[in-house]
Amino acid sequence: MQQSTHSSQSSAPSAPSAIDSAVLPAGLQQTFVQIPRTRPTTPLLDIVNTPDDLKSLTTEQLITLADELRLFLLYSAGQSGGHFGANLGVVELTIVLHHLLDTPLDQIVWDVGHQAYAHKVLTGRRDKLNTIRAKDGLTAFPERAESVYDTFGVGHSSTAISAGLGMSLALRYQGRAQTVACVIGDGAMTGGMAFEAMNDAVQQDADLLVILNDNDMSISCSIGGFSRHLAMLWESGYQVDISESGAPVLRQRPMMQDFDRRKRHSAQRYVPQLEDNLFKAVGFTYFGPFDGHNIPELLRVLSLAKQVHGPVLVHIYTTKGKGFAPAEADPVGYHAISKLPADDTATADSTVASHEAIDIQLATQPKAAPSLKYSQVFGQFLCDKAAQDDKLLAITPAMEEGSGMIEFARQFPERFFDVAIAEQHAVTLAAGMATQGVKPIVAIYSTFLQRGYDQLIHDVALQNLDVMFAIDRAGLVGEDGATHAGVFDYAFLRCIPNMLIAAPKDENECYQLLNTCYEYQGSTAVRYPRGTGTGAMIQRPFQNYKIGQAVVESVLGVDTAPIKLAILAFGTMVATAQQAAEIVIKDDILKTECQIHVVNMRWVKPLDSSLIERLLMQGVTHIATLEEHMIMGGAGSAVNEYLLNASAAFKTSRPAICNIGIPDYYVAHGSQAEQLTDCGLDVAGVTRQLQQLLS
Amino acid sequence: MQQSTHSSQSSAPSAPSAIDSAVLPAGLQQTFVQIPRTRPTTPLLDIVNTPDDLKSLTTEQLITLADELRLFLLYSAGQSGGHFGANLGVVELTIVLHHLLDTPLDQIVWDVGHQAYAHKVLTGRRDKLNTIRAKDGLTAFPERAESVYDTFGVGHSSTAISAGLGMSLALRYQGRAQTVACVIGDGAMTGGMAFEAMNDAVQQDADLLVILNDNDMSISCSIGGFSRHLAMLWESGYQVDISESGAPVLRQRPMMQDFDRRKRHSAQRYVPQLEDNLFKAVGFTYFGPFDGHNIPELLRVLSLAKQVHGPVLVHIYTTKGKGFAPAEADPVGYHAISKLPADDTATADSTVASHEAIDIQLATQPKAAPSLKYSQVFGQFLCDKAAQDDKLLAITPAMEEGSGMIEFARQFPERFFDVAIAEQHAVTLAAGMATQGVKPIVAIYSTFLQRGYDQLIHDVALQNLDVMFAIDRAGLVGEDGATHAGVFDYAFLRCIPNMLIAAPKDENECYQLLNTCYEYQGSTAVRYPRGTGTGAMIQRPFQNYKIGQAVVESVLGVDTAPIKLAILAFGTMVATAQQAAEIVIKDDILKTECQIHVVNMRWVKPLDSSLIERLLMQGVTHIATLEEHMIMGGAGSAVNEYLLNASAAFKTSRPAICNIGIPDYYVAHGSQAEQLTDCGLDVAGVTRQLQQLLS
Repeated sequence: MQQSTHSSQSSAPSAPSAIDSAVLPAGLQQTFVQIPRTRPTTPLLDIVNTPDDLKSLTTEQLITLADELRLFLLYSAGQSGGHFGANLGVVELTIVLHHLLDTPLDQIVWDVGHQAYAHKVLTGRRDKLNTIRAKDGLTAFPERAESVYDTFGVGHSSTAISAGLGMSLALRYQGRAQTVACVIGDGAMTGGMAFEAMNDAVQQDADLLVILNDNDMSISCSIGGFSRHLAMLWESGYQVDISESGAPVLRQRPMMQDFDRRKRHSAQRYVPQLEDNLFKAVGFTYFGPFDGHNIPELLRVLSLAKQVHGPVLVHIYTTKGKGFAPAEADPVGYHAISKLPADDTATADSTVASHEAIDIQLATQPKAAPSLKYSQVFGQFLCDKAAQDDKLLAITPAMEEGSGMIEFARQFPERFFDVAIAEQHAVTLAAGMATQGVKPIVAIYSTFLQRGYDQLIHDVALQNLDVMFAIDRAGLVGEDGATHAGVFDYAFLRCIPNMLIAAPKDENECYQLLNTCYEYQGSTAVRYPRGTGTGAMIQRPFQNYKIGQAVVESVLGVDTAPIKLAILAFGTMVATAQQAAEIVIKDDILKTECQIHVVNMRWVKPLDSSLIERLLMQGVTHIATLEEHMIMGGAGSAVNEYLLNASAAFKTSRPAICNIGIPDYYVAHGSQAEQLTDCGLDVAGVTRQLQQLLS
Repeated sequence: MQQSTHSSQSSAPSAPSAIDSAVLPAGLQQTFVQIPRTRPTTPLLDIVNTPDDLKSLTTEQLITLADELRLFLLYSAGQSGGHFGANLGVVELTIVLHHLLDTPLDQIVWDVGHQAYAHKVLTGRRDKLNTIRAKDGLTAFPERAESVYDTFGVGHSSTAISAGLGMSLALRYQGRAQTVACVIGDGAMTGGMAFEAMNDAVQQDADLLVILNDNDMSISCSIGGFSRHLAMLWESGYQVDISESGAPVLRQRPMMQDFDRRKRHSAQRYVPQLEDNLFKAVGFTYFGPFDGHNIPELLRVLSLAKQVHGPVLVHIYTTKGKGFAPAEADPVGYHAISKLPADDTATADSTVASHEAIDIQLATQPKAAPSLKYSQVFGQFLCDKAAQDDKLLAITPAMEEGSGMIEFARQFPERFFDVAIAEQHAVTLAAGMATQGVKPIVAIYSTFLQRGYDQLIHDVALQNLDVMFAIDRAGLVGEDGATHAGVFDYAFLRCIPNMLIAAPKDENECYQLLNTCYEYQGSTAVRYPRGTGTGAMIQRPFQNYKIGQAVVESVLGVDTAPIKLAILAFGTMVATAQQAAEIVIKDDILKTECQIHVVNMRWVKPLDSSLIERLLMQGVTHIATLEEHMIMGGAGSAVNEYLLNASAAFKTSRPAICNIGIPDYYVAHGSQAEQLTDCGLDVAGVTRQLQQLLS
């Protein structure tokens, strides 16, 4: 039995709510129960300005540093919100990697940025961490432009082995002997491209150190054969240790009390044998599993493993939310947190050095119930429709909670399919289902649908299979930034024959368009944004809209006005169009009377060309299209195509046109409102662009 | 030792070139050395009109049928050309599956359609097989619209397990007990979505029979850890057999003389242990490897395996090109063949029943050297540039030959990376390489780039990494049909910030644009079609074009003409534009004098808006855009956006516009020329559309 040499001493002795370290089992870092309100005392962390400052620290000091870093992350998360559990889980690993490796010459590639906060703190960004995810602040994920230590930008998962292999091969080709270490979670490993990359790493016999950070859950819960395989490797009681020569040595796994009290979900029917090691089967040298919070163990294993030639996988076991008791108990709830609500008394003097803390419940459970999020609207639709129609099945690639499907999964477990992080498979699975007379719905974020694009074309739309895509998080998504923006979907979908694309203006219309597309026999997509809408109440029972029919929302101004503007607005921009139109009418900047038709286009494909034609015949002099999507190739572009090619009225009336949308650049992170302002899509920006068009 | 009970009798005794069956090793079907010119005698095959007709056949008859079917496929391939090796390899498997299963209630899902010819013959399409790939003939791949036995359309690889799992889950949900069998090649298994699907099949504990058709090569050659793993399973000398109860039984593998004489490429550094079975590790029940040409063995194994609960993988070993000696010797060369050249004497009387045959060399080595294919132009660029610049690295996802990279790989093996069928990984691998100061080129077919779309956005363009995409097979691709059409790339690429998109008009321009984009620091794409171009000779040394600069190819007609048309043509449509323009000028349909500017736009992004502006200022009255791409969202759509939003001259000159391209439907298979005619993009069609615009 190996005993951990972890110290239980804390560098933050005044933290009032820390569990008494004397009662902790050996091998555990300090565990905190509250998020400090004020900057904790972190003397060791304060002198780490670059990873070089870690090199001279002793093992004992590194352990102390882990406590300080964890406490600092807790404090910081309270200040700025953001990803939480995954970052707490890799504190020790991050410290050890930067201690052992010669970064930035050696390269660390983080798979999914959720786990890079500790990395940011140790690489010169400690004092900016409280700006994370805020406009002009640090990005939520590693970003090359932000730091030389951020080797590869990541927001989507499962990319690290591919990127790291590319680095390794390019370095080898150039004769540069630098280590490349990829850190990838067990959830991200289910993404097929990770498997593709492992396959290729073996083919190339590349020197590549892959660290599998196994915390037994992706965002909701790792599932599938791969997860069972990891469970088996754990529960076997064995460990492939690394000898001084770097050779694998099979031995009894040492107890890891912190983990052993938890049971992983094993296979029910088929328990693979210990010998069936997937990583070894693919051709990796495998070591593990090891305790990922045990700094001396990590130092020993990783310093040896980085010397081993060829592709190596080190399997470590960590706890999401490690060191913060509420998060350890509820890792899903603590995947990310919102920043702590303002508390005048507590934050009045931010220089107070004591560890004032507030109960985390305040941060995660706001007292006022918000209006329905679009994901919740989708969840309600699912439950309501499933109760009516037993043909309905629903699929998510690991976004059960984010997509609002928890209640549906509870009510209809046999109709709910969480396929893990596997967007390609999710889409083709739906296609296969649709061939057998059921109606599958793929719930997917716009940005992740990019992963299943070929499958949508080749497996769904080309065969016009009866599959509906519920595209969530479309448009600008706020703090997650450009990696997660869903701003290309109109363009990449509308060129695909057979696809119907609906864009609801509000919550109720979302509900009804989901119904309308569900009732349609063929390939459809309903696209809605992150967050809440105008607050429109869902009107039951279901309505079935006419496909391709737009709606004139309002007509402002008088019919005799010499300027007649039609705003053809898509999706949630209808509300913005309405507000901007009212301002344009009120302001007399134009010095001319003006009439404005605000049109809710409702469908990107098919486009309501007959309404456009009617508007032109009524003497519209100006047309503005408005969408939360790239201008290039977007919904406005569809309007242009109609006007220039097919419209008879356009040839005679010749109105002036303006396509309003996102310009040809990546919109940096910030709140959704700030992002909209950035690219001129807030009410003021749209008003300004309308006035330019009219003047 | 198991002895095969295969009969060596031939149902085609008059085949003059068949190897004397008496000298064949036991366990082999008959082997042919020539492709028959006339319809062979196939008495058994002739009575199989549906799979039901197979049910009553004895094992001996099934073996005879295999010979007949193989001879028929050889004959047919000679008549129509098409995929070849893979189809010959699955003759026995196809017969056994349709004999054992109750198709179409039971479902067979073929991964990649290359292997579905025998399936088509046995499911009522025998007499139409000679129309395969021809316009209005059978499709090259399974297609749901063609037959109820074609359960799922496939052209791209690695989809079968996902689709089959979808079917299985939908059937289970509906309480329908039908078997779903997926047949997937070892090459397709490297695609990550196959791994995603296996992971999910285990999670779902779905009844799913996956048959791994292991012929040790994808289109060029299976590579990577997965292939080594299969080699190990083979070379171990063991076999996981299936007992009468369906339980796995480990035993010595019987000799399979046909295979054992070949050595598979094993891992050089790391030889995994037999026990490390990847399929078992993921949670599948694994049986194999078995001889995939041994009909009694297949009958025994598959009839038992289909009874086993849960996800089952049966690993069979087959020979690509099986039963045709030249193809067995050169499976890469015989992946697909062209149809036999006309031979007046031999084909004058098609009713001749004897097996006249011609040497296959005639079919695969046309005597006249064709002009350079675009893929060869790319190959020459690669070699020329690599000789100049040691930063150049090149990546292909299993398309070394198709992408014209054989010579480059020979000259620069250390700079050539074939990552297997793994498009997602290919793109992110390039991104990783680009971070280390080299310049990777991803050679990829347009249709397969759809598989790496998210990676192109998230890993390459968002970081503006210095990666060039050489996009081959763009536009309509002919006989492979809609699954392989590369007609969405302008739309899905031009909405992505940072991307440059070049569209060469001919071979030399392709060479120079590859150079220009290579020299540019950032994310670029050069898009060129399948096949040959106008025959423009490559002009060395390299030229570096100005980015975003279009060229006026020609001005036809007189400057005083009242009608002035500008044809803004993209890529290879420039030649079509030129020819159509000449016809329009010559014909006096318009009864009016006309001047035409034929413009080679050369760049889809950035667009040469200044040239467009100059043309407008010169009094252009009509503009036609012309591209081999969907109209929706395509290059013409980019022109529209410029004209309507940014052009000052457009507001005053107000020319009439027409966007010419592919309408909003999938273009059925046929020759490329037939496809272009179908959608109005041949010279006649473009001329007609121009005349409509002008009249």
